[in-house]
Amino acid sequence: MRLARIAHAGGVAFAAVEGDEVLEIAEHPFGQPNFTGKRWPLADVRLLAPILPTKVIAVGRNYAAHAAEFGNEVPSSPMIFLKPSTSVIGPNAPVKLPAASERVDFEGELAVVIGQPIRNVPAARASGVILGYTIANDVSARDLQKADGQWGRAKGFDTFCPLGPWIDTSVDPSDLALRTELDGEVKQDSRTSLLIHKIPELVEFISGVMTLLPGDVILTGTPAGVGPMTDGQTVSVTIEGIGTLTNPAQNA
Amino acid sequence: MRLARIAHAGGVAFAAVEGDEVLEIAEHPFGQPNFTGKRWPLADVRLLAPILPTKVIAVGRNYAAHAAEFGNEVPSSPMIFLKPSTSVIGPNAPVKLPAASERVDFEGELAVVIGQPIRNVPAARASGVILGYTIANDVSARDLQKADGQWGRAKGFDTFCPLGPWIDTSVDPSDLALRTELDGEVKQDSRTSLLIHKIPELVEFISGVMTLLPGDVILTGTPAGVGPMTDGQTVSVTIEGIGTLTNPAQNA
Repeated sequence: MRLARIAHAGGVAFAAVEGDEVLEIAEHPFGQPNFTGKRWPLADVRLLAPILPTKVIAVGRNYAAHAAEFGNEVPSSPMIFLKPSTSVIGPNAPVKLPAASERVDFEGELAVVIGQPIRNVPAARASGVILGYTIANDVSARDLQKADGQWGRAKGFDTFCPLGPWIDTSVDPSDLALRTELDGEVKQDSRTSLLIHKIPELVEFISGVMTLLPGDVILTGTPAGVGPMTDGQTVSVTIEGIGTLTNPAQNA
Repeated sequence: MRLARIAHAGGVAFAAVEGDEVLEIAEHPFGQPNFTGKRWPLADVRLLAPILPTKVIAVGRNYAAHAAEFGNEVPSSPMIFLKPSTSVIGPNAPVKLPAASERVDFEGELAVVIGQPIRNVPAARASGVILGYTIANDVSARDLQKADGQWGRAKGFDTFCPLGPWIDTSVDPSDLALRTELDGEVKQDSRTSLLIHKIPELVEFISGVMTLLPGDVILTGTPAGVGPMTDGQTVSVTIEGIGTLTNPAQNA
């Protein structure tokens, strides 16, 4: 199933995307969703961020080729940091480039959406606690990231966490093509099989630190090829079996 | 006014603390609180974390003497990082020392609680958007902090953000004594007047990056004297005009 959040003429709702239609879900998409019976053509609704997480946990330097492009070692344990929930936006919403930064980069990533409250989940049970997979752009003010040391500012601006277009609940995430295009030019082209710390290990590691709640999101890291996005450009991140997340960049 | 969150015989509520009594507040404490008329002796209720923030933004190296004790420079801009909302606990709740760390430190701090949704608030208007002030312990797994580089893990374990005992809405935060005791021995003894980046500047800086929501918390940084807390020890952080936040440490 593909789970989305939509704005329709009457309000906002979770929905399942089936072909060219969206089917409204009552309440929330966790567990077995209840359908209201309302449906709309996909073209008549606006897709929002498919989930509003209480927290977004991101993993740094989780593809060897990306660590190398900035001259960094690959960490032996996952290196985690947080992006604020206020940074989340949906498909096609503009990434606002802050005046405080002279270089804002795209970072296409596979994102894991947690399906239930968890703590200390072993890797072997990780797949059972995951709602599904979506696409993220871990937008990063590269100059501020280097200057600050801690990444709370550089990766925390409003609009710096595009998510979407939907959560795919059935895709196998272990070896998917991931491609990021800037105005149609391919910039990142890799596969999720190259993740250093795999998804089950990430779930075990992160849930061993902090309680994860339904809808919390793990950004699994970006492959090589990151680069700047400027006012008027458009970034599209495509992950095989999931879809494409597209966002324009605008000066704030 | 002193705003608390309490567990009483019938449930959980916000409340105002007046002398030896607590007066129940309907709904939430933002704006002009509505009182239900119910009241209890303070000794008959349990104080919880006074607020459940959507996010906790912490400021690193904001007292010169603390930056110096680890050989760090004072950053020219505030260095911000996030602690997960799941790390928040209330007064007297145990800090759980994770097996993954061999050294978990206390860090007593003045905490700012935001009172309304804000973005881009200039320093001159900061005091008007603040609900009040409370006390925090920015508990930190020092060995993991050094090993990881990013502090998401070291400062993000469940129970690593004690807050309380209440939010004081009228205290002037600009020059308050801050004292941290470990089993009664004074370890940190400073004044908030020594903050490098003052509270109005922090509100301007952080709200220039991200939208802050009612109840969001800014930890303003810790003074010199941080050190380890071990199983069975108790940490008390006292800030003049606010009160004392006490938490025991226990092996997880």
